[in-house]
Amino acid sequence: MNCGIKMKVIIPVSPINSLKTRLSEFLSGEERKNLLLNMLKDIIKALDGLDIVIVSRDEEILDFAKNELKAETIKEKYKGLNNAIKQAFEEIEDKEVIIIPADIPLIKKKHIEDILKLSKNYDLIIAPSRGGGTNLLYLKSKDLIEIKYEGFSFLKHLEEAKKRNLRYYIYDSFLISVDINTPEDLGEIFIHGNDTYTKNYLKSLGIDVEPKHSSAGRFVVKRR
Amino acid sequence: MNCGIKMKVIIPVSPINSLKTRLSEFLSGEERKNLLLNMLKDIIKALDGLDIVIVSRDEEILDFAKNELKAETIKEKYKGLNNAIKQAFEEIEDKEVIIIPADIPLIKKKHIEDILKLSKNYDLIIAPSRGGGTNLLYLKSKDLIEIKYEGFSFLKHLEEAKKRNLRYYIYDSFLISVDINTPEDLGEIFIHGNDTYTKNYLKSLGIDVEPKHSSAGRFVVKRR
Repeated sequence: MNCGIKMKVIIPVSPINSLKTRLSEFLSGEERKNLLLNMLKDIIKALDGLDIVIVSRDEEILDFAKNELKAETIKEKYKGLNNAIKQAFEEIEDKEVIIIPADIPLIKKKHIEDILKLSKNYDLIIAPSRGGGTNLLYLKSKDLIEIKYEGFSFLKHLEEAKKRNLRYYIYDSFLISVDINTPEDLGEIFIHGNDTYTKNYLKSLGIDVEPKHSSAGRFVVKRR
Repeated sequence: MNCGIKMKVIIPVSPINSLKTRLSEFLSGEERKNLLLNMLKDIIKALDGLDIVIVSRDEEILDFAKNELKAETIKEKYKGLNNAIKQAFEEIEDKEVIIIPADIPLIKKKHIEDILKLSKNYDLIIAPSRGGGTNLLYLKSKDLIEIKYEGFSFLKHLEEAKKRNLRYYIYDSFLISVDINTPEDLGEIFIHGNDTYTKNYLKSLGIDVEPKHSSAGRFVVKRR
């Protein structure tokens, strides 16, 4: 399904067994898998009308992507996020790409509409994650920069853009910055994730949140 | 200094001795005070051209506000953030207000320009903090809602707007969402705070950050 936009959205997804280990004290392996699949459904909803390819080593994820999400898939040959994205670059024909992770369920269609509008005037558009990462990267052409998803990738990708005098834009979004790695992150879903698959799934597990103001975090995340 | 906009920006500031206790393991009392004053300078820079009133119980902060920041001041009579804001509402003439905290040094002039444009079409504009709080609240008139800065104030302020059928807008900004409460929060200043007073002050203390991916956080914040 494509509304005439010659662009591919690339979503790299880690294998289920390595999923969100920082959530393991809170969610079982099966629950973490279901959390991921629900997050992917929320993300796909925001990408409505765009061509999507999911890159993974995990057959279960690739099957889900094909059958449930109706996305194209690429089986990863090499380990590591940068390698997975470079492999996708080689295997897809499209030049124009957006790269997003599989754990930003608060991303909305409006964000993508903004990015598509901005893409007319910019070579590179980047949305930060918390902690200095990159939660959305648009490239007018996939060969414009070296992909550097490690360390403070936000700064590294900006450096790449400046080095090549690219027209770049920092897309400042709290909702896109929220990626789900720790129980604390789940709290943001309860605040901002109304009518998302992700929040509904977490509620079905009996999870709920309360405010907390301490150096150990801003939420008390509990299970009935 | 006012560019003809009949609006007041209210910045409530807690007393210095109660400041950022969650940073006390990392910064001395004097350093936390200087951090606050530098954050205020960054915020005032973003508010260029608007009338500002700083509300506090702390004489040192009120003096700094008058002499350094050239802001109006209100000496708090009652404890608590809601009381401080209600007192400000009573003492200022302006109807139209923006309320922001004193610890969001990544706020930029562009954000305020956006808010001023949006204010033509909305009664209430709200920007979330992490953890379900409110890091910016614009009210077309200060009597439109009940101020509720406690618990998940973001949800409470939205509820107030819905209850009264106000036209409200959620302003989605990562940079405004970053408030400084824990050493981990300082990391975001190093990534996104280039040429801010706040980052320069932290660097003068020999502080620096490195990436970290663990459930305990996304930064290693260190001091030489």
